[in-house]
Amino acid sequence: MKINGKAWRTIWLEQNGAYVGVIDQRKLPHKLAKHYIYNHHDAAEAIQKMIVRGAPLIGVTAAYGLMLALQKDPSDQSLESAFSELIATRPTAINLQWSLKRVSKLVKSLPLAKRAKAAQKEADAIAEEDVLMCEAIGDHGLEVLKKLSKDKPLEMRNKPLNILTHCNAGWLATVDWGTALAPIYKAHRAGLKIHVWVDETRPRNQGSSLTAYELGCEGVPYTVIVDNAGGHLMQKGLVDVIIVGSDRTTSRGDVCNKIGTYLKALAAKDNSVPFYVALPSSTIDWLIIDGLNEIPIENRSSSEVLRIEGKLDNGEVREIQLCPDSSNGFNPAFDVTPNRLISGLITEKGISPASKLGLSQLYKNE
Amino acid sequence: MKINGKAWRTIWLEQNGAYVGVIDQRKLPHKLAKHYIYNHHDAAEAIQKMIVRGAPLIGVTAAYGLMLALQKDPSDQSLESAFSELIATRPTAINLQWSLKRVSKLVKSLPLAKRAKAAQKEADAIAEEDVLMCEAIGDHGLEVLKKLSKDKPLEMRNKPLNILTHCNAGWLATVDWGTALAPIYKAHRAGLKIHVWVDETRPRNQGSSLTAYELGCEGVPYTVIVDNAGGHLMQKGLVDVIIVGSDRTTSRGDVCNKIGTYLKALAAKDNSVPFYVALPSSTIDWLIIDGLNEIPIENRSSSEVLRIEGKLDNGEVREIQLCPDSSNGFNPAFDVTPNRLISGLITEKGISPASKLGLSQLYKNE
Repeated sequence: MKINGKAWRTIWLEQNGAYVGVIDQRKLPHKLAKHYIYNHHDAAEAIQKMIVRGAPLIGVTAAYGLMLALQKDPSDQSLESAFSELIATRPTAINLQWSLKRVSKLVKSLPLAKRAKAAQKEADAIAEEDVLMCEAIGDHGLEVLKKLSKDKPLEMRNKPLNILTHCNAGWLATVDWGTALAPIYKAHRAGLKIHVWVDETRPRNQGSSLTAYELGCEGVPYTVIVDNAGGHLMQKGLVDVIIVGSDRTTSRGDVCNKIGTYLKALAAKDNSVPFYVALPSSTIDWLIIDGLNEIPIENRSSSEVLRIEGKLDNGEVREIQLCPDSSNGFNPAFDVTPNRLISGLITEKGISPASKLGLSQLYKNE
Repeated sequence: MKINGKAWRTIWLEQNGAYVGVIDQRKLPHKLAKHYIYNHHDAAEAIQKMIVRGAPLIGVTAAYGLMLALQKDPSDQSLESAFSELIATRPTAINLQWSLKRVSKLVKSLPLAKRAKAAQKEADAIAEEDVLMCEAIGDHGLEVLKKLSKDKPLEMRNKPLNILTHCNAGWLATVDWGTALAPIYKAHRAGLKIHVWVDETRPRNQGSSLTAYELGCEGVPYTVIVDNAGGHLMQKGLVDVIIVGSDRTTSRGDVCNKIGTYLKALAAKDNSVPFYVALPSSTIDWLIIDGLNEIPIENRSSSEVLRIEGKLDNGEVREIQLCPDSSNGFNPAFDVTPNRLISGLITEKGISPASKLGLSQLYKNE
């Protein structure tokens, strides 16, 4: 997608794969900065420190991390050691495991000399597939948005379709297009009149920093709200549909996503607002059923709750303390939305009910 | 309640009522500062700029505002002009209207020379009644907490009772004791083992600044969480009860409170967590029934969403910008929780179901 009129991806190879470039997402929206990853330790650090984030992008970054490790040392030991370091960075998003296993499985059967190149090719493939999956999600989601627009009462037809999203499941969370935001970009380009309510998404504010930034760059009308406001907006009829992403989806369609998603899903149900989750198949964990009890939820540093970063009026970016000096904080990063609250899953294969039957039918030939 | 071991109230008279002192709540938790109100314009400004806030304290401040206006000019015109200026400061909390009408009605029947003193006496009475009502709420709420502690499964008995609260309905929102926090202080003093989850409460962070500050001063164990986290904590069985305050309560028990309260009530219902609202009768608007359609919701400046204040590491308190430069924000300050989601109302008269019958029986002799 575009930044200042120029097309970008979130991750790319430099010098034919000698190292990897990414957008440093910690610096947005106040500064657009590149960050470089030279080895698998850097890749692990980039994931852990959330220089890159978003389940699909984490997966791609990890795959390139294995490539960099194999360039230096293609041995089994090196592979295993890099695999272990990368998989330990973040526990919740399933894409991380998925892409590491995919690359690892492939190269294990190859002679040492071919491993690095093969890993590069596979990581490239994961990245390209991600772009295609996200674009397909956009196309399928566009149909949902078109239908909702068409079904609006006559007197509301000339008003924009109000879409609420939580966190950032945009192109910055993937390689390009995004998941939850892909249908929004497709709709905007198709000339559908839309407006996006952007949940701030404390504690790391991926909504007010990244989603707002993305939408602004693409010219999509949006308004930032605090995470507390969505329920009230739904009660007042100001939300036509919610679309969020997923960090891990169970085989019955429970969705683990950024903390606070569950609260919006409850409000959507209570106000009959359609609640969709957009996800590529790489976020589906076929091995588990019950999201609430089977998905490990990452608890991040309490300093993310107690402090926050932003731009002073002089342009300097600084961190401030929000709480009394001696406060404790608790910071679970994700929650689970049970399938009963979800209107549908928007996948690269089409729309599925959030159910075991729905997902298994959609992916029956895989 | 206490700050550094010394007893405080949020509002007091200086020089026998020549002017009024308040705690400047914008400066907490980083600095404890007094602010002085010399005339009714100052009182209106203090309410509007949230130097004082919380429905009960707004009511008391407005009453003293009328007193100050009548000291300067006890005419009907002066009374009406001060009344109009004060009532226009904030639209949602009903206590503002209630206390202004109470003082105004009383002084109107009096000769000019007696009005200022009578207003002072009435404002004092409103303040003292507020303290008594809050303490009574504390006593009734304590019984609820005792019962919940007693009813815990045997294996959980030695764990603290986990209470979640949203915004600040503590003594800083009233004259003393608080509403939602009064039962918590009573429980703590009674030796009940409790722990409080403090919702940050964006956009103005009354939770992480004021509630955290209050609880810290009184030695009540607490942990700050982002507003997004409460649903997940309830899903995981980490919340035993929720207590919040009310800015306006309808005759059937719908509750208008800080934005985001509704989302917590939904999660409480979904997870069978008892959801109580603590309120003095001064927040009941007997004239309205349907909170969602009859209570005006204040929309505050979008800068409260786009920017936030806190303490730099050098101790300086500064405001930072969170969003991209060109972002818009929308900032409704309250939402309405329908009575069906409320387990009970904790009032100064006792516990009532959130229903027309419950409230009318509790207050039948008024």
